[in-house]
Amino acid sequence: MTRRFGQVIRLRPEGEEEYIRLHREVWPGVKEMILECHLRNYSIYFKDSFLFAYFEYDGEDFDTDMKKMAAHEETQRWWGVVKPLMEPLETAGPDEFWANMEEIFHLH
Amino acid sequence: MTRRFGQVIRLRPEGEEEYIRLHREVWPGVKEMILECHLRNYSIYFKDSFLFAYFEYDGEDFDTDMKKMAAHEETQRWWGVVKPLMEPLETAGPDEFWANMEEIFHLH
Repeated sequence: MTRRFGQVIRLRPEGEEEYIRLHREVWPGVKEMILECHLRNYSIYFKDSFLFAYFEYDGEDFDTDMKKMAAHEETQRWWGVVKPLMEPLETAGPDEFWANMEEIFHLH
Repeated sequence: MTRRFGQVIRLRPEGEEEYIRLHREVWPGVKEMILECHLRNYSIYFKDSFLFAYFEYDGEDFDTDMKKMAAHEETQRWWGVVKPLMEPLETAGPDEFWANMEEIFHLH
């Protein structure tokens, strides 16, 4: 069964332009790993300093797939480039970078 | 061709509980009109005071469908209930209630 995710984070003011530029051409290996880890229909939106991400997961074991992604060398290098441009919310959980949001409505 | 939308707005502190409660059981006529106007895969997420909406549009004429929705009597009554619980961003456009966000990444 497909799971849906909504997540939020902020961009540092000095990082906005670079983050948006980088996302016009995300590294091919990073995109391949996203798909290999069963993330689908992945969008990131920007407004003011906020980023919202929406994606779906259609695999069998989300935690295992996320560990696989985190262990991928090219993805680690990508995160090394983009994470310094970003600023987690103060209310993000202790293990969160992007903060998960609560889905309060869905209509397929 | 399917279009995707990401939108953001805030809840007034005193309106959070009521808005979330109402969205557990959105009025059936309102949901029918959403689908009749070709909005698909519609999710609303909540975190801190922020609401983020993601939906897809698979009709032929978005503006005409949105006018149809806005002319629907039950939808108008629904908006009369939920809009006072919400607070548009100061940076929303002159014709916006929910503010449209810029899609900066998509991977299907």
